[in-house]
Amino acid sequence: MAKKNIESNKTFQVYGINNCSSILKNQKFIIKEIILSKGKQSYSKIIELKEYYDKIKYLNAKLFDEKFGILRTQGIIVNFTGKVLRDFQEFEFTKQNSCLLILDQIKDPQNAGQIIRTSECAGIDGIIFPKHDSFSISNTVLSVSQGAFVNMPLFQVININKTIRYLKENDFWIVGLENGLNSQLWNDINYLGKIAIIVGSEGSGIRKKVLENCDFTASIPMQGSINSLNVSAAVSAILFERLRQIQSFKDK
Amino acid sequence: MAKKNIESNKTFQVYGINNCSSILKNQKFIIKEIILSKGKQSYSKIIELKEYYDKIKYLNAKLFDEKFGILRTQGIIVNFTGKVLRDFQEFEFTKQNSCLLILDQIKDPQNAGQIIRTSECAGIDGIIFPKHDSFSISNTVLSVSQGAFVNMPLFQVININKTIRYLKENDFWIVGLENGLNSQLWNDINYLGKIAIIVGSEGSGIRKKVLENCDFTASIPMQGSINSLNVSAAVSAILFERLRQIQSFKDK
Repeated sequence: MAKKNIESNKTFQVYGINNCSSILKNQKFIIKEIILSKGKQSYSKIIELKEYYDKIKYLNAKLFDEKFGILRTQGIIVNFTGKVLRDFQEFEFTKQNSCLLILDQIKDPQNAGQIIRTSECAGIDGIIFPKHDSFSISNTVLSVSQGAFVNMPLFQVININKTIRYLKENDFWIVGLENGLNSQLWNDINYLGKIAIIVGSEGSGIRKKVLENCDFTASIPMQGSINSLNVSAAVSAILFERLRQIQSFKDK
Repeated sequence: MAKKNIESNKTFQVYGINNCSSILKNQKFIIKEIILSKGKQSYSKIIELKEYYDKIKYLNAKLFDEKFGILRTQGIIVNFTGKVLRDFQEFEFTKQNSCLLILDQIKDPQNAGQIIRTSECAGIDGIIFPKHDSFSISNTVLSVSQGAFVNMPLFQVININKTIRYLKENDFWIVGLENGLNSQLWNDINYLGKIAIIVGSEGSGIRKKVLENCDFTASIPMQGSINSLNVSAAVSAILFERLRQIQSFKDK
């Protein structure tokens, strides 16, 4: 119990219209402070700002830029607390077409944030990542996600392999994205139904023990010579291929 | 003529194993200096380093980190000159399945670099971008591309609409990625044959005049509520859908 309290008491800071507007719209976070740059008009389209008038602090443009200028703030910063992570026990296994993404050893916060953003746009049901050897939830991860973290369930687990076994018991098929000898083309895999897709880090891929737990492995063959697709670009390719399959199945 | 000389005389600086190894492997650039961090062993796998022994300068790890530490250098920096851009006049229209990407008003160098990287992995034939209201070739763009800029033809043009007309005269179909009323689903568009795909900036999309020149518009419907897919993630989705179609056509 103590742990949960620590996580939900931590203050996060995000910037930019999309992020701040997502948080202000949602009721589950506690808004501590909203810092606005006096010069900017860009944030005036966030109508929810009115409800939080007592949390707003104006800084003159020069001071604001000095303090936050390097980031792409669009003149707005929100400090908040609340539960960004969810308990995996709460995950509902009832949906017919369900997709979870498992991130194994992804450490770069930019990649993690982009993956959360893409996942929300592609309509999957959650992202699972381990507590160790992984990115953790930081201001950068949240900000890069452009507010997607508000709607995308994020599950931090202790043991990925245990989680995979649990998913299998609940009728999930496990697909690892890995260019191996036995890999199928990414688009030859059937993503309908209950699917968990595992992606590894660009440097070291999916850990061997985790890979052994996959039912299938998928590969996206590289057409050029650099041979290295960014992991968030690979996630985009595979998640929108899943959407295409769901779409095509409906049309039949 | 003067202009061309200026472009090819500019010194660029890239870092990291992938970037530096791509440049050293390729014969078309003039290597000015290779700076190595004495402590690191990661670059020793670049066998081409031997050929450039007279260009190498070692810095002790502390000094190297002080100078370049913020970047993901992996202990190697290469300064080079050469023609990064190619002349669009040189583009060969003979390939049966040919794909060009047109970037309209993409200004963020991170996005530009990621798009070059993804495009190389997805095997398209070139990227066209305007001289004005656009990113330009910088160290950041090149470095983020992870060496992809070496192999991916990059064409900077004065007038996008003129280029589009020229492409149409040469049997290209023009597809704009834009969520409009008349847009088709991205996967309902046939990408076989000669295709130019236009993407706009996340903020303002494709300019109206450019959009009017499109034969089709494609949309990737957003499944969540943030409604904003990163432009490089969108490029990944559409270019790998094209590859899938080419693959499926071959299998028939």
